[in-house]
Amino acid sequence: MSAAGRPRIAVTMGDPAGVGPELCLRALAEDRLGRICTPVVFGDVAVLRRAGAACGLAVPERVFTAAAALTQAAAPAVYDLRAVDAADVRPGAVDAATGAAACRYIETAVDAALAGHVDALCTAPIHKEALRAAGVPYPGHTELLAARTGAPQHCMMLTADVLTCSLVTTHLGFREIAGALSTERIAAVIALTADAMRRLHGREPRLAVCGLNPHAGEHGLFGAGEEERIIRPAVEHAVRNGLRVEGPLPPDTAFVPGRRERTDAYVCMYHDQGLIPLKLLAFDRAVNVTLGLPIVRTSVDHGTALDIAWQGKADPRSLFAAIRLAAQLARRGAGQGDGGTRPR
Amino acid sequence: MSAAGRPRIAVTMGDPAGVGPELCLRALAEDRLGRICTPVVFGDVAVLRRAGAACGLAVPERVFTAAAALTQAAAPAVYDLRAVDAADVRPGAVDAATGAAACRYIETAVDAALAGHVDALCTAPIHKEALRAAGVPYPGHTELLAARTGAPQHCMMLTADVLTCSLVTTHLGFREIAGALSTERIAAVIALTADAMRRLHGREPRLAVCGLNPHAGEHGLFGAGEEERIIRPAVEHAVRNGLRVEGPLPPDTAFVPGRRERTDAYVCMYHDQGLIPLKLLAFDRAVNVTLGLPIVRTSVDHGTALDIAWQGKADPRSLFAAIRLAAQLARRGAGQGDGGTRPR
Repeated sequence: MSAAGRPRIAVTMGDPAGVGPELCLRALAEDRLGRICTPVVFGDVAVLRRAGAACGLAVPERVFTAAAALTQAAAPAVYDLRAVDAADVRPGAVDAATGAAACRYIETAVDAALAGHVDALCTAPIHKEALRAAGVPYPGHTELLAARTGAPQHCMMLTADVLTCSLVTTHLGFREIAGALSTERIAAVIALTADAMRRLHGREPRLAVCGLNPHAGEHGLFGAGEEERIIRPAVEHAVRNGLRVEGPLPPDTAFVPGRRERTDAYVCMYHDQGLIPLKLLAFDRAVNVTLGLPIVRTSVDHGTALDIAWQGKADPRSLFAAIRLAAQLARRGAGQGDGGTRPR
Repeated sequence: MSAAGRPRIAVTMGDPAGVGPELCLRALAEDRLGRICTPVVFGDVAVLRRAGAACGLAVPERVFTAAAALTQAAAPAVYDLRAVDAADVRPGAVDAATGAAACRYIETAVDAALAGHVDALCTAPIHKEALRAAGVPYPGHTELLAARTGAPQHCMMLTADVLTCSLVTTHLGFREIAGALSTERIAAVIALTADAMRRLHGREPRLAVCGLNPHAGEHGLFGAGEEERIIRPAVEHAVRNGLRVEGPLPPDTAFVPGRRERTDAYVCMYHDQGLIPLKLLAFDRAVNVTLGLPIVRTSVDHGTALDIAWQGKADPRSLFAAIRLAAQLARRGAGQGDGGTRPR
């Protein structure tokens, strides 16, 4: 935490060939973010200069070249990792070299957060195929972060002003979803979600847990009893632990306005159960939070948008919201899922 | 069609112990409906009198007792089927006798529509457990209607001003969904949906077909290739037939505002993929249409609401919208899925 009490947020630049560089420059220049935190972009300053020139955006003068020095950062800055040759970056192209660089920014930022050189981590978008081309053994951010921090139990939560959803399963084939549900996993996601929402709102949150089958199985008419066998025991476990949790709810009526108004967060069984309503209501405004890590981590809720990269057209609101949420969680002394202490 | 050009709509009363009777009385009294159609409630006049007395609602004087006479109906009326002893009906109770009566109203209305005594069918809610208690071998309206009309291929479409969704699978356990998809079935649902929307809008509609897996499989990263193997061939078949169809789309971004504005109807792979966004946007205003029958059939989008039956509290808007849509489809010379000719 800086002398002014503003948390330092490591903002990873994402894939150099995507919209990450220009969004990061916009974040560094955004006064309203600078008042609540100190953003430090983990990336390549030469790439930022090229992208900035293409989009008419300025690059901050303050450039760090060593992680330990970041504890001195008091204004928006860049941590220059020189992970890619800027002259070789082709905006909009899927490339092993930019995939490898994007991975390097994240790994460095995780290490800086674990070492206490920064207070939280916010990630710009990476490209799954570029990561794969670079031989990175993780399909995305979440898996990479979990492996590097050694987190035993983690989950993805997406949050916007109008709706917050945590996901029990995420990037899994549809046929594999039902078999991947377990009472233990659902109970863990309920606990992680309650913890995060308690930190954000400063009170005990009201959670709703969705069923899996149409009408939540309608008393056994549809499905293999997943609601009664797997989901309900997790809800009952949470209630015994003092949490305010309802469910399993019929998924189709879970998100109607009257129910949303009295629900702080939903625990959803699969990706589209949560993301269909979330993107419908808050497309481009939602923030992705990884719960259960020993560090605070938020992310934009969109991809690299290669078709508009380096054109100055990309909407920075999701990144701004993600940095703001990282700052809020860091100020509350977070690091979720570890009772509030973070290794320093 | 009546002399005044207003279609006659058979409105089945639904389960006598639910909110159907009071909603039907409200529909019969609604001038705006009476101007576009002639609603005839297929039910028990003695039950309507008891429910009307409880809720302070009037019962029309015109009561028919033979189907053939319905061609004379020129004002809102009741077709008295005497299917249950009104004195025995307990509002709010699940009962084999009321389940059997509800089934009788539907069967009689289907026969009247097939015989041309009425122009369309609109159904008030029935109770699945009451039907089961009565030994009715169908879980709901759709199956009963398909069996009685001998329709080989049919589907459920839910429609509201803001969103219309057709369902490839409906009341099926989650684990059974992926295995129930076939190119033939999806192609049939696309064709039925295009036909219905063409009749409603008087132009070629723009359809969107959702994928099954997260991100529609993201080029084979998730799932068992259902998008490429099963869904895409159905979309391509429809395009070859001249339909305006896109897909398979990533389900989570399919319903964002920009996409909704240029989509007349969505073809959804499973119940909650369509009903989560639909109920979120249009709870209590959506209408259920069964496509592919030789008769026009619409329905309310809610249940029997036994907890508030006969209390005068039930919201009639969904039934009003369902009757209005039945009238629109009947006026367009519908009967969907048969090229526009209906047996008379």
